[in-house]
Amino acid sequence: MFREKIKILDCTIRDGGLINNHDFSLDFVRAVYKALSDAGVDYMEIGYKNSKRLFSPKEFGRWKFCDDDDIKRVMDGIESKTKIAVMADVDRVDLEDIKPRKESPVSMVRVASYVKDIDKAIYLVNHFADKGYETTVNIMAISRALDNELTEALEQLEKECKANVIYIVDSNGALYQETTEFLIKKAKSIIKTKEIGIHAHNNQQLAFGNTIEAIIHDANFVDGTIYGLGRAAGNCPLELILGFLKNPKYDIRPVLDVISNEFIPLREKIEWGYIIPYAIAGILDEHPRAAMALRKSAKKENYREFYESLVSEVEE
Amino acid sequence: MFREKIKILDCTIRDGGLINNHDFSLDFVRAVYKALSDAGVDYMEIGYKNSKRLFSPKEFGRWKFCDDDDIKRVMDGIESKTKIAVMADVDRVDLEDIKPRKESPVSMVRVASYVKDIDKAIYLVNHFADKGYETTVNIMAISRALDNELTEALEQLEKECKANVIYIVDSNGALYQETTEFLIKKAKSIIKTKEIGIHAHNNQQLAFGNTIEAIIHDANFVDGTIYGLGRAAGNCPLELILGFLKNPKYDIRPVLDVISNEFIPLREKIEWGYIIPYAIAGILDEHPRAAMALRKSAKKENYREFYESLVSEVEE
Repeated sequence: MFREKIKILDCTIRDGGLINNHDFSLDFVRAVYKALSDAGVDYMEIGYKNSKRLFSPKEFGRWKFCDDDDIKRVMDGIESKTKIAVMADVDRVDLEDIKPRKESPVSMVRVASYVKDIDKAIYLVNHFADKGYETTVNIMAISRALDNELTEALEQLEKECKANVIYIVDSNGALYQETTEFLIKKAKSIIKTKEIGIHAHNNQQLAFGNTIEAIIHDANFVDGTIYGLGRAAGNCPLELILGFLKNPKYDIRPVLDVISNEFIPLREKIEWGYIIPYAIAGILDEHPRAAMALRKSAKKENYREFYESLVSEVEE
Repeated sequence: MFREKIKILDCTIRDGGLINNHDFSLDFVRAVYKALSDAGVDYMEIGYKNSKRLFSPKEFGRWKFCDDDDIKRVMDGIESKTKIAVMADVDRVDLEDIKPRKESPVSMVRVASYVKDIDKAIYLVNHFADKGYETTVNIMAISRALDNELTEALEQLEKECKANVIYIVDSNGALYQETTEFLIKKAKSIIKTKEIGIHAHNNQQLAFGNTIEAIIHDANFVDGTIYGLGRAAGNCPLELILGFLKNPKYDIRPVLDVISNEFIPLREKIEWGYIIPYAIAGILDEHPRAAMALRKSAKKENYREFYESLVSEVEE
């Protein structure tokens, strides 16, 4: 697949940070930035812009706050065309923490939002756009969105929002190709002035398949993470996207190197990927939090009991 | 997805046997048979019918030969509607080893064949069909088949072959959904009197996605293995197929149990699944044998060097 408009956004450090309280070492983040830069990846999302009034820097690593100085330390001395992105959450960001783009190493601000919070997301995104940033709205938990409410949110985004990209986010790893096709086509039918993006989770080993499906139906922004690193089941593996896309600007080899050198050792220390309780959560279209709790308990391999606990919660 | 005609064939022991010389213990195979029976899985492929003249029982476990007595030991005392299948390879089977179906615990014989060997496969399959078995032809390495030769093979299969099912086999784990769609539609356009099946490998985490794609385009036989067990990157995880299909006869829970009890411990001893050299082989549409050799060497995590070695082999 070659389409010049396709852009890859790597969110290894941002989504991966959800496993380790955003506490990656500076060396690790620099190794990722170097690999992405050499691979020609378009964007690197480096963390969250969360408020230090709400979260303590004693409890969380620096990539939960993404001070400009820390970002500059990552970039220092590395030749790169890869743009830096940060994520801002509705109700968790201090607007004054985001300087005008000209004064910042950041190029893109992404706002993650549930359908119900879309008005807040639009407010935030328009604020960041006015400060000069490229912006996106990432619609989370889309597998649980009611169709009429999603329609309304997309119409609002098209009319009122300055975002460059609207993302479909499969937070639960519950989408199959048919639903992905439906959602991307639906978004494309309403969103005419912005690009569509896909952010897939890998509970059912479908993150890559759903990403391909989205690309087939003209999504031009695709999220991936190196070796699929990310909360719970993780994300669409960046290396597979690079293997699939034929755009000559991309090179898979620097990403293979950083997997060998950094991610294989890391996987010995922290857990992510295809793990049955996450698959069960995906099959049942549930948030992974119950599965994450299970994995920290003595019952971590009691799959049937976990399955029963989720299905028995269903009541009229 | 619900379609009554869909049948699931589990090939855990057969394909998994390629990792451990077919040397699963009787208890392990019985646990798999019990789980599949309780889950309502339609077929269990238990191994190969290879000739003891060509392969020594001293070097290989019993599931390379699948003596009827061993199969009966597996089935003994377990209530089941799951039918037993075995695989026969072109040039590796003694026809007299296969008794008439009435005298055997086996219901189905599958013949795996490259396009070039299709005449031999048809001869074998017709022989087994005449002995009373359900039969399939599994067309291997389909990503490498030339279109005109594949057309001819499919036409021959339709006209000359008594097989009940013709399988598309993605031996290299190289197919994407678009190619899967193309191949299934092509097969359906020629094969009118038999079912179409899909056997996918998981090099690029697309075995399940491609299986769904095949189901969408009316393949009715789908192969899976428990926890994806299988040579190299492994196969389409059976538990994901069971989670996806809505047919009420299937129950995922017995499979979750056997993963907890048998497959998690097994994965500590033998390796399969998403491993970068297998992904590279899939991306480059190569047989996994070079990657399997790499994984047994001291360079097992040298991904860039492995990638370079494969791409540098390309010559005019």
